[in-house]
Amino acid sequence: MADKVTIADVARIAGVSRQTVSNALNSPEVVRPETRQRVLEVVEELGYRVNLAARQMRTGRSGLIAIRIDPAGDGINGSVFDRFLHGLTESAAEAGYRLLLYTAGDDDKEIAAFEDLLGAHEPDAFVLTSTHHKDPRTSWLLDRKLPFVTFGRPWSELPEVPHPWVDVDGSAGTEAATEHLLATGHRRIAFLGWPSGSGVGDDRREGWRRALAGAGLDPTGLSRATSDAIADGEAAARDLISGDPDITALVCASDSLALGALQVARSPNPAWHAEAYRRIAVVGFDDTPVAKAIGLTSVHQPLTEAAARCMQLLSRALERTPPGTILLPPSLVVRQSA
Amino acid sequence: MADKVTIADVARIAGVSRQTVSNALNSPEVVRPETRQRVLEVVEELGYRVNLAARQMRTGRSGLIAIRIDPAGDGINGSVFDRFLHGLTESAAEAGYRLLLYTAGDDDKEIAAFEDLLGAHEPDAFVLTSTHHKDPRTSWLLDRKLPFVTFGRPWSELPEVPHPWVDVDGSAGTEAATEHLLATGHRRIAFLGWPSGSGVGDDRREGWRRALAGAGLDPTGLSRATSDAIADGEAAARDLISGDPDITALVCASDSLALGALQVARSPNPAWHAEAYRRIAVVGFDDTPVAKAIGLTSVHQPLTEAAARCMQLLSRALERTPPGTILLPPSLVVRQSA
Repeated sequence: MADKVTIADVARIAGVSRQTVSNALNSPEVVRPETRQRVLEVVEELGYRVNLAARQMRTGRSGLIAIRIDPAGDGINGSVFDRFLHGLTESAAEAGYRLLLYTAGDDDKEIAAFEDLLGAHEPDAFVLTSTHHKDPRTSWLLDRKLPFVTFGRPWSELPEVPHPWVDVDGSAGTEAATEHLLATGHRRIAFLGWPSGSGVGDDRREGWRRALAGAGLDPTGLSRATSDAIADGEAAARDLISGDPDITALVCASDSLALGALQVARSPNPAWHAEAYRRIAVVGFDDTPVAKAIGLTSVHQPLTEAAARCMQLLSRALERTPPGTILLPPSLVVRQSA
Repeated sequence: MADKVTIADVARIAGVSRQTVSNALNSPEVVRPETRQRVLEVVEELGYRVNLAARQMRTGRSGLIAIRIDPAGDGINGSVFDRFLHGLTESAAEAGYRLLLYTAGDDDKEIAAFEDLLGAHEPDAFVLTSTHHKDPRTSWLLDRKLPFVTFGRPWSELPEVPHPWVDVDGSAGTEAATEHLLATGHRRIAFLGWPSGSGVGDDRREGWRRALAGAGLDPTGLSRATSDAIADGEAAARDLISGDPDITALVCASDSLALGALQVARSPNPAWHAEAYRRIAVVGFDDTPVAKAIGLTSVHQPLTEAAARCMQLLSRALERTPPGTILLPPSLVVRQSA
């Protein structure tokens, strides 16, 4: 294949330095008109494109926003990130930005990736996901005064320097799920979540607890924690249900856990339609395509809106206005399972 | 927030031109040692990062691979692209590249995006998905001798200039699905696909037809075409089944269509487990998370491998070796539905 035309080609053929080519394109006032004319003719002749190099020198902006992408998981909860990513790409495009993807196995590797990205591509801003307690990534970016927004609130004690974030109010989601179950007659409602210590997981458990407390019900013994996989959800649900015959409903921290719980909830009388769910009502979280396909009631996160709001806060950060924070309400999508 | 340090800052403080800063970093042999020393000290002092501008001038490579991302759909078939994207990001990272995402509503807009991307970010290569008959995007890239690979074969008459592509053999997938049904005793096996004219859809129909022909069975009247949505699949399956009481199995061009077909296949005796599928066996295509969650037998595409192979062919294209093409075999994942 033919070589790409470079600024050096233009400079050579026009008989000027590369800097003069760059100036002719970006700072014409510092170049003599006849020189500029000659450069532009060569640019036209060779089909040279004003490149990022020149543009970056002029504006100090790359037009790139960097975001981490993880290896594909079970495809259930990963779909939340994917929907967010699709939305963010659209919102970024509307604001004149494009997304640059990178990978990183842990926080330290992600910080190394920040350094590498800044050296190689100079992204104008970062979008971080999966925020967690004592997140070193936000401190690193704050220390360097680099614009970023997190999808996920800062879970630690408030950082000394605030930063922009967008999140969905998970506890409001599980609270609404639990209140829906209370309103439909359930009194002994258990919670299936993740081990305590994760900001997102603890928040979702808190919403369930709050709803029970509001109804004057005691949550003691009604919560189980496990890792986020279908089989683990099934085992934990079996443990809960077999140990407490009065349980009639389960609120789950994810659709993966809810899918596992459904395997238990449906037995011993499995069936497909509404009858299927008579024994134990199950509510999931995230309203994944799987939930829609199997009739699982689930808490829906407004991911397209979250992505648009992230872009909105990033635009403000790029203009160096004080950081904003946005907590979006989720909604409960009621289907056959509860 | 503080300004980003630019090459102009370094030049001003070191008392040299921007070109000299660039040379000091990239072509030290053309700069006097004491000048280089002074520039490096200022670079260190200001925390200036060698930027893409300088790097691009030197290598002519941006390290970026551009790929289009579409708005989120129903989350079922879109998961195929998402899994491919996750895999491609990983493979690209191993080869020292990163992905740049862009959006485009149609072929013309995508070609406009190519122009814009080339002007703004100079991607080294493109990965195209959703190839189709008379695809103008490939001609455009071929005309300009820009490196690219398509995930999806060229569906038109062979292009005059071949280009690298990776695809999964869809007809082998539906053929295997149909042979599985034949082996388990089914004789009247219908196909639920998309309107003819789409390369992917016609190919999947062809595999089913081939398997029936191999068993000496007549496919006449056993094929329906509809758009790719659950409700459309349900309507088309109902039409097929009600019009031919001998049909005992359905091969579908997607998991979305198969999900619709299952609504019909399960009635009038709906149930959750193996009994559920006694009446009409259903096979989907793509082995999406939904298929796994509901026990749908489906054709699995090796998407992580496809992504790795795309990267492999791109690496060859970037070295200007002749284009390669790779057709990967799919596999049938047998679950309860067939």
